[in-house]
Amino acid sequence: MTNVAVVGPGLLGGSIALALQRQPGTRVAVWGRRGEAVEEARRRGLAAFASTEIGAVVRDADLVVLCTPIGVMPVLAREIAPIIRPEAIVTDVGSVKQAVVAELAPIFEPRGRFVGSHPMAGSEQTGLEAARADLFEGAVCIVTPNARTPESAASEVSAFWERLGCRVRVLDPGEHDDIAALVSHLPHLLAATLVQTVAGKNGEAFEFAGPGFRDATRVASGAPAMWAEILQTNREAVCRGAEAMIEKLREIITLLERAEPMSGFLSEAKDLRDRLRLRN
Amino acid sequence: MTNVAVVGPGLLGGSIALALQRQPGTRVAVWGRRGEAVEEARRRGLAAFASTEIGAVVRDADLVVLCTPIGVMPVLAREIAPIIRPEAIVTDVGSVKQAVVAELAPIFEPRGRFVGSHPMAGSEQTGLEAARADLFEGAVCIVTPNARTPESAASEVSAFWERLGCRVRVLDPGEHDDIAALVSHLPHLLAATLVQTVAGKNGEAFEFAGPGFRDATRVASGAPAMWAEILQTNREAVCRGAEAMIEKLREIITLLERAEPMSGFLSEAKDLRDRLRLRN
Repeated sequence: MTNVAVVGPGLLGGSIALALQRQPGTRVAVWGRRGEAVEEARRRGLAAFASTEIGAVVRDADLVVLCTPIGVMPVLAREIAPIIRPEAIVTDVGSVKQAVVAELAPIFEPRGRFVGSHPMAGSEQTGLEAARADLFEGAVCIVTPNARTPESAASEVSAFWERLGCRVRVLDPGEHDDIAALVSHLPHLLAATLVQTVAGKNGEAFEFAGPGFRDATRVASGAPAMWAEILQTNREAVCRGAEAMIEKLREIITLLERAEPMSGFLSEAKDLRDRLRLRN
Repeated sequence: MTNVAVVGPGLLGGSIALALQRQPGTRVAVWGRRGEAVEEARRRGLAAFASTEIGAVVRDADLVVLCTPIGVMPVLAREIAPIIRPEAIVTDVGSVKQAVVAELAPIFEPRGRFVGSHPMAGSEQTGLEAARADLFEGAVCIVTPNARTPESAASEVSAFWERLGCRVRVLDPGEHDDIAALVSHLPHLLAATLVQTVAGKNGEAFEFAGPGFRDATRVASGAPAMWAEILQTNREAVCRGAEAMIEKLREIITLLERAEPMSGFLSEAKDLRDRLRLRN
């Protein structure tokens, strides 16, 4: 029997708990901050045990998965560290890894072993109501051990995500953050900025938005507080990405102003994007 | 019996022809430049008559719909104008309207009546193989009469798109281009530029792209030559949009660098985007 404690039953935590229900030999316990969240977790049959008392949830866990906003994780980690089994493994699902790993790993060094994770699944939807047992199937999950992480802990965390259907990649936390800035954080910033740009130029234009605009801006419907935290925590890499984007936009504006051919630029982009479609 | 001539059986032209098959009392003729396109149109049952000879296709038409790339339209218009019935109506499906209307409307002033249209449907896919009879259902179609357009012609073109399931909006061609720059052309430019930015910074990052990145960049898979033409033709409005985008990105970079709160910016963007989701 493996005991897994899911801390925070939102979209990701709820989906992990639901997916684990399909695994015989796994017992799931869920912690929620609010009584209603715990009630809802019980109602949806998410876990053998659900409670607002974190001690009761994590005490017997072999694996603790932190699924709260990243700003709350250190507080919870300090509560959990003295309670968990000494050999317990702790991971998280935060979208930023360098800051999270640097802060959490030392908290668990006397007791427990911490390995960062970032399952690249989810959507603009949030909360337990959007949780699905198959959310992780085929998704990439980046596991981010650092120089001090015990190898066995990293392997166990990788195996955990693979059992949920993820394709696991291992990266250094800093490499992760550079990559996440490019394929996740910058696209989020651009979606929100595009919506704000249209609102600033001509709010009536939204009436004419078609499927292309809807897809391009979908992630802008994500939770603002959570995304503000992610963007701020990874601000250096995000700013580098945004500067590179501005530079490329300037090149394009110059091509347009000089009425120079653009199909080379667009063809290259199409080829890169088409390869992505084939791969995923 | 209404005779409709569809000039160019690609994604849009093919979908128009397929949708018209459902309308009793409508006879469809299709012109394709290449013999294979005409063969394929026949094979898919797109039209009562399909040919590479434009005269045979447009001669009896009550309505001619130009569905070719915008650069080809003036050439075809000059071929068609002396042949069509004097009271025939001509429209197009081009994504840019000011330049198209300014060039095409005078060609049909001695014979035929021209009204610009822009059905905002389609996808990154192209060609007849992607055509669907329901492509226009629920889509916005902008009809763009100018000061010289006979009112009856504008009404007939609006009624045509409504029969295909479109929600028709009437705009001046210049207003159309400003709005299309914001909700269609700029998003396309950003998608291609984001792909190029990621490729320039770290091509391996594509391996880690999830559904958010795929959606944000989907339109970058569109036909490069067609989009180069659209962006160049509407370059002034597109450049204004891109400059506004750069300005907003600079504001955000400043917020990030000063570690100032971003959730207001993201919340506003979310509210605007959520309203869009409800409306469409």
